[in-house]
Amino acid sequence: MPSLQKAAFQLDERLARDTVLATVTGLCQLRVMKDGRWPWVMLVPQRGGVSETFELTPLDQTMLTFETNMVASALKKVTGAKKINVAAIGNIVSQLHVHIVARSEGDPNWPGPIWGFGSAEPRSETDMKDFIKALTEAL
Amino acid sequence: MPSLQKAAFQLDERLARDTVLATVTGLCQLRVMKDGRWPWVMLVPQRGGVSETFELTPLDQTMLTFETNMVASALKKVTGAKKINVAAIGNIVSQLHVHIVARSEGDPNWPGPIWGFGSAEPRSETDMKDFIKALTEAL
Repeated sequence: MPSLQKAAFQLDERLARDTVLATVTGLCQLRVMKDGRWPWVMLVPQRGGVSETFELTPLDQTMLTFETNMVASALKKVTGAKKINVAAIGNIVSQLHVHIVARSEGDPNWPGPIWGFGSAEPRSETDMKDFIKALTEAL
Repeated sequence: MPSLQKAAFQLDERLARDTVLATVTGLCQLRVMKDGRWPWVMLVPQRGGVSETFELTPLDQTMLTFETNMVASALKKVTGAKKINVAAIGNIVSQLHVHIVARSEGDPNWPGPIWGFGSAEPRSETDMKDFIKALTEAL
């Protein structure tokens, strides 16, 4: 029995501070980054004690893939982005979380990565509300 | 019929130049980066005309997930890394490719990302051969 995966899920404090809950996609919480420099969301599987995708059960791995691709496709649709970046990094926050980011030519640090670049810039409340509405409708 | 996915697969020239073929995992070529700063490999689905994971068929998406997690787990085993980073970025090379990187405290740019950081440093031929042997045996 993989006891690691039996720990209760509790959202990491830093993820909670940096993001806003948009919806629950099934396995995951879909959360939007407060940093408004890019359309940038995150899927957090609601499983405790998991930091690597391969630690999930095979069914959860498949669910995460399905939800990641569903969100990535919706994000591309609502933003018209040139490229969707998908990454599970977790060097700082070890709780498994998957970044899904819409990138466009000329955006901050294009075509470089968004991670570790510059400082967060807040989204307005209206902008956040509109973005969540558009994204969840496109799912 | 998704004609996009019917294009013949041909490895992108830059990916070919920067990597060495280790093996074929099923859907994907498993390739090792010549940059030796980190244990850094890449899965390239052998499908033409695909730049986003969600453009693959559902079966191919599942295969890619399975192969990604198999390689990530093997990479963790052979390196003893603290964290495995997995990312599909593709802002520069649009052909779909998934980075799988073993990260350890104190490695170059830890805990920042590896993408866009510094300049490549070559691996020795012996080191490359040993790494490929260890990794493929762990699959």
